[in-house]
Amino acid sequence: MKFLAEIEILPKKGLLDPQGKAVTQSMPRIGLNQVKEVRVGRFITMEFEANDKAQAEADANTACKNLLANLIMEDYNIRITEL
Amino acid sequence: MKFLAEIEILPKKGLLDPQGKAVTQSMPRIGLNQVKEVRVGRFITMEFEANDKAQAEADANTACKNLLANLIMEDYNIRITEL
Repeated sequence: MKFLAEIEILPKKGLLDPQGKAVTQSMPRIGLNQVKEVRVGRFITMEFEANDKAQAEADANTACKNLLANLIMEDYNIRITEL
Repeated sequence: MKFLAEIEILPKKGLLDPQGKAVTQSMPRIGLNQVKEVRVGRFITMEFEANDKAQAEADANTACKNLLANLIMEDYNIRITEL
């Protein structure tokens, strides 16, 4: 079975996010004066084969933990869809 | 009213994504041999004030078009939640 994993990675709450801070401060320049906080992370999609949804979720977690995310500084969230 | 925009930005289909290609090729090293395609983009969250959901959607689109995404090379997707 073919699956799509959509993975959202963000800096952990409370950790400094200089890129997000810079974007927040730029918002008034494009006319958006009511923006409180912007956080910038990574969005990763992965198409892969797995035997079932449980295996797909396990594989996506393996990818996040061992390659895609830095668990000391980042949190991640995975959505799995069968293709 | 306070809103959260969750914005997913990916390189357009068909455009070269060298970072995604590098990640795809690294997957067998962590034991994942069935990964076909990885695409790497950005995930951005934005907390902001707006009068209603329509205004919130318009503001998030403004942010994407004028600051967050490069529309020539990237597609974006916005989810709006009231906080």
